[in-house]
Amino acid sequence: MQGQNQQQAYDRGITIFSPDGRLYQVEYAREAVKRGTPSIGVRTEGGVVLLVDKRINSPLMEESSVEKIHKADDHVGIASAGHVADARQLIDYARRDAQINRVRYDEPIAVETLTKDITDHIQQYTQVGGARPFGVALLIGGVDDGEPRLFETDPSGTPYEWKAIAIGEKRADVQDYLEEHYREDLTLDEGVELALRALGEIRDELTPAGVGVGTIDAETGTFLELSDDEIREYLGEHELLPEADEGEESDETSAEDEETEE
Amino acid sequence: MQGQNQQQAYDRGITIFSPDGRLYQVEYAREAVKRGTPSIGVRTEGGVVLLVDKRINSPLMEESSVEKIHKADDHVGIASAGHVADARQLIDYARRDAQINRVRYDEPIAVETLTKDITDHIQQYTQVGGARPFGVALLIGGVDDGEPRLFETDPSGTPYEWKAIAIGEKRADVQDYLEEHYREDLTLDEGVELALRALGEIRDELTPAGVGVGTIDAETGTFLELSDDEIREYLGEHELLPEADEGEESDETSAEDEETEE
Amino acid sequence: MQGQNQQQAYDRGITIFSPDGRLYQVEYAREAVKRGTPSIGVRTEGGVVLLVDKRINSPLMEESSVEKIHKADDHVGIASAGHVADARQLIDYARRDAQINRVRYDEPIAVETLTKDITDHIQQYTQVGGARPFGVALLIGGVDDGEPRLFETDPSGTPYEWKAIAIGEKRADVQDYLEEHYREDLTLDEGVELALRALGEIRDELTPAGVGVGTIDAETGTFLELSDDEIREYLGEHELLPEADEGEESDETSAEDEETEE
Amino acid sequence: MQGQNQQQAYDRGITIFSPDGRLYQVEYAREAVKRGTPSIGVRTEGGVVLLVDKRINSPLMEESSVEKIHKADDHVGIASAGHVADARQLIDYARRDAQINRVRYDEPIAVETLTKDITDHIQQYTQVGGARPFGVALLIGGVDDGEPRLFETDPSGTPYEWKAIAIGEKRADVQDYLEEHYREDLTLDEGVELALRALGEIRDELTPAGVGVGTIDAETGTFLELSDDEIREYLGEHELLPEADEGEESDETSAEDEETEE
Amino acid sequence: MQGQNQQQAYDRGITIFSPDGRLYQVEYAREAVKRGTPSIGVRTEGGVVLLVDKRINSPLMEESSVEKIHKADDHVGIASAGHVADARQLIDYARRDAQINRVRYDEPIAVETLTKDITDHIQQYTQVGGARPFGVALLIGGVDDGEPRLFETDPSGTPYEWKAIAIGEKRADVQDYLEEHYREDLTLDEGVELALRALGEIRDELTPAGVGVGTIDAETGTFLELSDDEIREYLGEHELLPEADEGEESDETSAEDEETEE
Amino acid sequence: MQGQNQQQAYDRGITIFSPDGRLYQVEYAREAVKRGTPSIGVRTEGGVVLLVDKRINSPLMEESSVEKIHKADDHVGIASAGHVADARQLIDYARRDAQINRVRYDEPIAVETLTKDITDHIQQYTQVGGARPFGVALLIGGVDDGEPRLFETDPSGTPYEWKAIAIGEKRADVQDYLEEHYREDLTLDEGVELALRALGEIRDELTPAGVGVGTIDAETGTFLELSDDEIREYLGEHELLPEADEGEESDETSAEDEETEE
Amino acid sequence: MQGQNQQQAYDRGITIFSPDGRLYQVEYAREAVKRGTPSIGVRTEGGVVLLVDKRINSPLMEESSVEKIHKADDHVGIASAGHVADARQLIDYARRDAQINRVRYDEPIAVETLTKDITDHIQQYTQVGGARPFGVALLIGGVDDGEPRLFETDPSGTPYEWKAIAIGEKRADVQDYLEEHYREDLTLDEGVELALRALGEIRDELTPAGVGVGTIDAETGTFLELSDDEIREYLGEHELLPEADEGEESDETSAEDEETEE
Repeated sequence: MQGQNQQQAYDRGITIFSPDGRLYQVEYAREAVKRGTPSIGVRTEGGVVLLVDKRINSPLMEESSVEKIHKADDHVGIASAGHVADARQLIDYARRDAQINRVRYDEPIAVETLTKDITDHIQQYTQVGGARPFGVALLIGGVDDGEPRLFETDPSGTPYEWKAIAIGEKRADVQDYLEEHYREDLTLDEGVELALRALGEIRDELTPAGVGVGTIDAETGTFLELSDDEIREYLGEHELLPEADEGEESDETSAEDEETEE
Repeated sequence: MQGQNQQQAYDRGITIFSPDGRLYQVEYAREAVKRGTPSIGVRTEGGVVLLVDKRINSPLMEESSVEKIHKADDHVGIASAGHVADARQLIDYARRDAQINRVRYDEPIAVETLTKDITDHIQQYTQVGGARPFGVALLIGGVDDGEPRLFETDPSGTPYEWKAIAIGEKRADVQDYLEEHYREDLTLDEGVELALRALGEIRDELTPAGVGVGTIDAETGTFLELSDDEIREYLGEHELLPEADEGEESDETSAEDEETEE
Repeated sequence: MQGQNQQQAYDRGITIFSPDGRLYQVEYAREAVKRGTPSIGVRTEGGVVLLVDKRINSPLMEESSVEKIHKADDHVGIASAGHVADARQLIDYARRDAQINRVRYDEPIAVETLTKDITDHIQQYTQVGGARPFGVALLIGGVDDGEPRLFETDPSGTPYEWKAIAIGEKRADVQDYLEEHYREDLTLDEGVELALRALGEIRDELTPAGVGVGTIDAETGTFLELSDDEIREYLGEHELLPEADEGEESDETSAEDEETEE
Repeated sequence: MQGQNQQQAYDRGITIFSPDGRLYQVEYAREAVKRGTPSIGVRTEGGVVLLVDKRINSPLMEESSVEKIHKADDHVGIASAGHVADARQLIDYARRDAQINRVRYDEPIAVETLTKDITDHIQQYTQVGGARPFGVALLIGGVDDGEPRLFETDPSGTPYEWKAIAIGEKRADVQDYLEEHYREDLTLDEGVELALRALGEIRDELTPAGVGVGTIDAETGTFLELSDDEIREYLGEHELLPEADEGEESDETSAEDEETEE
Repeated sequence: MQGQNQQQAYDRGITIFSPDGRLYQVEYAREAVKRGTPSIGVRTEGGVVLLVDKRINSPLMEESSVEKIHKADDHVGIASAGHVADARQLIDYARRDAQINRVRYDEPIAVETLTKDITDHIQQYTQVGGARPFGVALLIGGVDDGEPRLFETDPSGTPYEWKAIAIGEKRADVQDYLEEHYREDLTLDEGVELALRALGEIRDELTPAGVGVGTIDAETGTFLELSDDEIREYLGEHELLPEADEGEESDETSAEDEETEE
Repeated sequence: MQGQNQQQAYDRGITIFSPDGRLYQVEYAREAVKRGTPSIGVRTEGGVVLLVDKRINSPLMEESSVEKIHKADDHVGIASAGHVADARQLIDYARRDAQINRVRYDEPIAVETLTKDITDHIQQYTQVGGARPFGVALLIGGVDDGEPRLFETDPSGTPYEWKAIAIGEKRADVQDYLEEHYREDLTLDEGVELALRALGEIRDELTPAGVGVGTIDAETGTFLELSDDEIREYLGEHELLPEADEGEESDETSAEDEETEE
Repeated sequence: MQGQNQQQAYDRGITIFSPDGRLYQVEYAREAVKRGTPSIGVRTEGGVVLLVDKRINSPLMEESSVEKIHKADDHVGIASAGHVADARQLIDYARRDAQINRVRYDEPIAVETLTKDITDHIQQYTQVGGARPFGVALLIGGVDDGEPRLFETDPSGTPYEWKAIAIGEKRADVQDYLEEHYREDLTLDEGVELALRALGEIRDELTPAGVGVGTIDAETGTFLELSDDEIREYLGEHELLPEADEGEESDETSAEDEETEE
């Protein structure tokens, strides 16, 4: 209770330091990220994979409207975890920033430059009064002159570069899986599989509509979102599809059973 | 009591995160939505249906003045639940936004674009200080090049796309009904019936003046509000009208009885 | 006491939501309306009637200075209940708004348009910080192309249209009377009588100086305030005048006695 | 104590509504008015009388510097009760307003117009944050085209018109006297006498220097402040002067006695 | 303790009214005045005298740097008591104001006008948020066309005119002395003596360096500060000088002993 | 608990003094610095060395993305400890400042000038409201006309010049080592070794990727960041490399064992 | 505890008066001054001496970077005690102010004018909200047309002129020494000695690098900072140097032993 009262004192009106040098509002914003469904990024030699969990509770909601993966520019995709409306603000910021770069320098913005512009923007909301921090983390994947890059931004406005990373709910479990199975020489396809399997660690089953996958191919340098069919293909190929979703001939065995799809 | 004190700490002056990463002011604004009379949206192959509950307590109030369904543009209608005055602000915002699009691009605004402009506007009120969030949810229905679209906005500024959805008071009961009876291949007329029956789940009776219905036909792409007579017709056709309201042959059961309908 | 503490938390500096989705400052502003002397509006086929209670405590105060009924434009009158100084601000706003409409479009503003401009203005004071809501409700009566309209605005900024309505002190009693006796086919004169009798329900006696009456005739479309003599005539005709006020020959019977005047 | 805590909650930073719809800061400002020495206004057929109590504690203070009666324009005088420095701000506002009217329309401002401009200004300080209400009430007396007018402004920004009124300390006692003795057909001289006698109700004695009298004659339409000699004359004529102050023949009764007057 | 808590509620962020209509911040600013060393003003037929107590604790401080008496314009001097840095702000304001008057109207500003400009400035700091009141009182002495004037300003922004007045520490004792010994027909020299003797009431001894004296002669209309020698002369003439300070021949008797100086 | 409550009082909204003259928010920001991984600066005759600890927890994070050492201008490098996002803001400020100097004066900015511009900027965030202090300390190393300079900035905005300094976690231990082993006549290479050994005091092992090293050579006056290979070389030369990282022939002895590298 | 709570009430957000008329934030800022190492000013016939204590804890810090003595203009030096970063802001202000004076009037600014400009600037931070007071005191020494002047500014913004003064830690002890030994007819050299000996009162030993000395010679009117060698000379001449620092021949006796240098 003492501790609680103490915390409250650092939550009023403006983001300020606690006696032990922490910014509680930023840490609470990180909690908002942890409340979000997970997103995963995997950097491979062949490009970057962004995977998002789009599971929804209501059968009447359009899963396509669960926006967690976005195209920021031709060569950059962004996945988010946390407060969806906050993510949209940052995506808009990223798109304008990328556009300005094209207009000004007549070339695509470097993924790292874009990431740091975004984190500088995020940082302002943690230091200057009159607003709260952004309650969202982003995975920014892209390709610069053939080189795949994968960055994370957190609510404090710190940029990190990763080989593979999970953000959001049950992040630790997914990250453990990634650390165990990641290899630097993955192909882009293997990267998609790794991401799907990592998500499978914390999901009883994966459905084509329940996940979103975006890739930025190192060769083409172009961001693409996979269609439900393409995702189904991946899931099928890698025996990740629950039976009910795999075709008419699905039998009643468990989801872990092996199934092949066309 | 502890929890209550804790909550209060996150409600002062500005919308800030609680230790578990929630934005209480946004959650309380959602409560304001739940206090509002229900609105229902149904997307069919033939178009989108918006249904609002306009029941009023006083017989001297003009039911037509209970504004819960609005035309945002020729091809877009908006229904609301929650704080009526807040809804009006967003409707005005939507109309200006749609108008600007016509002027600038000489074409109707896409329903999704309009929705996201609105949610971005809503989000600002949850992050920047000096104002409270909007205490209202909107159902935005429209037709883009023949394709019916139905979106929801909530007080956090998150856009969702739905096949069918209920917002406001007793939302869960109506939504259950929708989930059970919704079919993708509904006609627009069947959509109206579904919405009326869904509302009937939580209302003892439906009167023509007590509900408002707007439709956007997929073919014409035009928003229309049904007249009381047209609603009466629907209610009568589908035997949803309380006896007293159904025609000359009404018997003497209920107290409110004896009404004529041409 | 718990509840009280809880309420206090939502009353500081800015109008914010309570955990159950209410805006306490708006609700308290409604209490300010209930503390005001009552005003009544009645819409008839022949026009709109606005009646205000101008009773004052001191015999030395000029009853004419109790401003509760105002001309907003040639065809619109406004009656208020609640915080008088707040009402004046809104009246000024209404007059400017009506004037701008005439200048811009060369035609009188529609009563509904005027009402909604006012409610939008009121709503801003409930959402944006740095000011309190308006502690006043308005009855806006007018005639558009021969059609009588009667609107109410409340402190939340919601517009309602009414056939007949009472606001202010003992509103419920007056409203009950109106609901019981209102008929759609009232003449304007009958409307004045209905309003006077409704007020009589909660007043021991009515004096010409103690009430203010404004009418907007459907035919002429012109707002007129009745003189004391005209009010006396109405009161006399309808046997609503207390004896002492009816002329030199008043006898000492009770105020409910029947008296005729000229 | 409960009630006290409750009040405190409505006194912070901005003027807001209490649960029963009151504006405590405005009510406290009214207390500031009640703490001021009284001022009296009397409207007669012959013009308006403004009387102020200028009693001071120190014999070394110049009574003439106790500014409670002011000329706002040739035809308007203003008396105040309450916070003197606040009154000065409003007087300055009134003078500028009257001056602007003369420049713009080439005619003196109507007393009612001036009053309402002032009350609108006062109201702003009760609704918009960042300032406290004015802790002063004004009596505004003037003559419009031969017609005497007398208005009061209070800290809420409400204008009232009066035949006769007292504001400030012991207001109720003075007002009772006014109500008992006021007649509509008073001459201006009788109005001065009435005001002096009314003040005499709550003062042991009146001295020429201890009161200030301003009149606006209906015929000339000009504000005049009476000199000490003129006041002495009035007091003498009406036997309101304490003995010691009445002339050379003063006897040795009271302690404060022994005064000579040229 | 109750009362203390109550007071605290009215001291936050902005100067607001207490339930009994007081402005605590202004009253506390008056306490700051009472904490200052005293200043005295005396108006005589021959001009105005301003006397300030410049006693200091450290023998190494330059008494001349204790700024409590200032020239505002050729014909106006100002003495202060209270917060020295606040006084400086007001003196600067006064000087600019006097200078502007000379530039604009080519004549010296009237002492009363200057005083009221200053008090209006002070009042703003008691009503508008974002600043605290001035913790200082001023004595403004000057000569208008041969007429000596002496005004006081207090932290509320109220102007008073005085024949003789003391402000600051032990004000009451000094004021009592002034009231007892003041005569309207004093010469300027007698005014200086009166002020010195009044200060002597609360000081064991007066030294030339420990007091500051400014005079505005009615004939010349010019503000002059007395040199230490001139003050020593006055003190000596009027037997107010402590022995040790009177010259080389000072003996060791008590300070109350009588000494004459040249 | 008392003390805790007391502290809280000085942490609200704005950085203010505590009764003992401390600025808690600044002191808490210093705690944020202490929570950061350490950075070390060493000034030698041959130039300045900046060493940062880049250890990361996850094997999938790119150590190169841990930005703790930055080039501010050709001749200036900056290392940081504490809040990374805050550091980025100050680095941006420094770069702009250095750039402006080049544009304006056509010469590189003096290291001391740059440092003081940064500290003045930091100070503003400790005095003016509406923002929190920067939670970061910087080591600013550079060469002015051949002279090596090494400065530290802290969250209060105070600049210090050092011969050798450590900031961040376990600062005291590292500083003790520096104080014991620092010599003024170190070569740049010896400076790098000293910094590496000092960090080794608090780290079980140092890896090339786990540290970042920047040098500004006194002769060339140019900031250079060492590659992983160059760092490996240093670590190897000075027997600081853990066995596993030293090459294929590493044996299983302890990290303190002697190893030679090429 | 009561008193403590009471104090807290006056420390929030803005500098306001306590019930006894004190400004706590200003008094706390004075505590910040007392926490600083001492600075001493001595005014002699031959000029002004400024002495600062630059003792540092770490042998690796450059004592020259402890900035406590500054040149404000050719003829003015400033020493500070308290918050170093705050001092820098005021020094910058002083330099700009002096520069503007030279540009505008083509002559050096008077020391008193400069002082008062600075104190006026300081005062603003004690009255207007949104910032805290400056936590620093300054000693401003200079020469105007051959006349030495020595001023002090404190956190309230009050200017004082002194013959000799100490500020900062253990101020009272140093001031006692100054009061005992100060003579008006000191030469500049004797002034330096007095200042050094006064500091010696509270320091076990003085080292050339541990003190900073600035002088403004009355004849040349030029501010000069003494080099370490010059300070060593002074210390040696006056037998103030600890043995270890006096030269190669230092023996191991105590610091109080007498040593001569060159």
